[in-house]
Amino acid sequence: VSGVLVTGGSGFIGWQVLAELAEQGEEVHALTTRDDPPPLEGVRWWRADLAHAAAVEQVLAQMAPTQLLHLAWFVEHGRFWQAPENVVWVERSLQLLRSFAGVGGERALMLGTCAEYDWSVPADRLSEESSAIAPATLYGASKDALRRVASAFCEQEGVQFAWARIFFLYGPREAPVRLVASVLRDLLAGRPAQVSSGTQIRDLLHVQDVAAALVALLRSPVTGAVNVGSGEAVALVEVFDEIGRLTGRPELIRRGALPDRPGEPTRLVADVGRLRDEVGFTPRWPLAGGLADAMEWWRAHPTPP
Amino acid sequence: VSGVLVTGGSGFIGWQVLAELAEQGEEVHALTTRDDPPPLEGVRWWRADLAHAAAVEQVLAQMAPTQLLHLAWFVEHGRFWQAPENVVWVERSLQLLRSFAGVGGERALMLGTCAEYDWSVPADRLSEESSAIAPATLYGASKDALRRVASAFCEQEGVQFAWARIFFLYGPREAPVRLVASVLRDLLAGRPAQVSSGTQIRDLLHVQDVAAALVALLRSPVTGAVNVGSGEAVALVEVFDEIGRLTGRPELIRRGALPDRPGEPTRLVADVGRLRDEVGFTPRWPLAGGLADAMEWWRAHPTPP
Repeated sequence: VSGVLVTGGSGFIGWQVLAELAEQGEEVHALTTRDDPPPLEGVRWWRADLAHAAAVEQVLAQMAPTQLLHLAWFVEHGRFWQAPENVVWVERSLQLLRSFAGVGGERALMLGTCAEYDWSVPADRLSEESSAIAPATLYGASKDALRRVASAFCEQEGVQFAWARIFFLYGPREAPVRLVASVLRDLLAGRPAQVSSGTQIRDLLHVQDVAAALVALLRSPVTGAVNVGSGEAVALVEVFDEIGRLTGRPELIRRGALPDRPGEPTRLVADVGRLRDEVGFTPRWPLAGGLADAMEWWRAHPTPP
Repeated sequence: VSGVLVTGGSGFIGWQVLAELAEQGEEVHALTTRDDPPPLEGVRWWRADLAHAAAVEQVLAQMAPTQLLHLAWFVEHGRFWQAPENVVWVERSLQLLRSFAGVGGERALMLGTCAEYDWSVPADRLSEESSAIAPATLYGASKDALRRVASAFCEQEGVQFAWARIFFLYGPREAPVRLVASVLRDLLAGRPAQVSSGTQIRDLLHVQDVAAALVALLRSPVTGAVNVGSGEAVALVEVFDEIGRLTGRPELIRRGALPDRPGEPTRLVADVGRLRDEVGFTPRWPLAGGLADAMEWWRAHPTPP
């Protein structure tokens, strides 16, 4: 009995994770609520809704996975920061983890967020070891609380527990309304892209690198919180400029047309020491190449504005 | 529509809370899983199991409580510190809180524990404002995580949220195997009581005072964490001596017959500044009087060893 159970496998990150795992020859199981999940070589889909604990328990009893990569969460753009659904997902994640431990699961990896850190204190790099935890949103607070109880539970039950704190990402299959996707789509369609000042400094990682980092972390013996980012400090204006250059339509970018969000931190960059040195992962996509890849995807998959 | 919903109403603390609320003329609703809950003047029992979220939601829709006092948890003596059931109760507590907010609930009070604090650093008094949070048990970690996500959820949903960190308690209806109850029962029955060194310093509160403090906190506008204790530092040996004196059988106490628990902190005493000054509560039972009251109860309710 072995295999990896992936939740959220049809999502933005999940799709790449499934591909990455299948490519490496892992026995991959994915939960889905769909009648017709997209066929993917090497992936076995199981129908179960994480809202129904008993059904999940039944499926896991048959599947008996030894590893868990839990990606599913409420991620509706704009709403997810403060939505009450975050609390629902704390409950579902804990139920899932208990079921996993109950069938002999050995190693669990769940998704955290850079929003667990205290954003009110400017920091050059956010570090798992030295930066303060003080989430300012319900999303961040829910992830933080999940990590605390899941980690204590796993320690008690003898399950290895790793926690990937993801930063900012972009790439193929991104929700069209998210920042990088929407600017790419606007410029490809010849529409002006209204953006904020662009002075915010962020840590951006191509979704394929995020997925590869998650799989590397899953296969490593590393436990606890690990930042998943590029470690590179990039001003959003550099992203806008690069998209302008790639599409040949830099004049369509309307910097300052949107206000910066109140309370938005000026700088969020990951200390990637643990990811690089302990997990042994380094990103494959440089920013310009990654943006070009995302552009090609949007060119091939145009969506209405 | 108004009223207080109490969970865990037939438990050690809950029973006293129901009595206290009913006495004050509150409209009191209590959830129970029993077919025949004990009749209590002024209390309306509703049959619903917190394990069944949909059933709880239905009951709350009819009841439409404005206040919630959530006491139910897994409390099996000895096991509760590390039991996986703690995680189940995080889930159930969050489900309950969402249902409560969903029917217009205005103020929620949940039970925390002194085990949320960092016990590895000796402290004269544990303070809500200045003491570090670092639970060493799954029980403490689960309560800590529940507080974090429940608090963020309530802030988002406009529900007042208070969190009572209880310390050590004793009194009528205590589980017979717990410390004060078992020593009282042994001495009343003329049996030797095997105890540890008794050098541990604790904060002990009579269960009626705990209940009165919880009701006072519920009725106050105070939010956030509030220690519920006596503020008095008492060595357990003083408790043993007092029980010996009250029962007239001091010679039956076998100090040192049991080892102290490894890692057990030498001193756990509450800073009760918030409870006293902001909530306006002071305990009614001095230790000797409280122990005498507990002794009378055990004399009237003897149980087999």
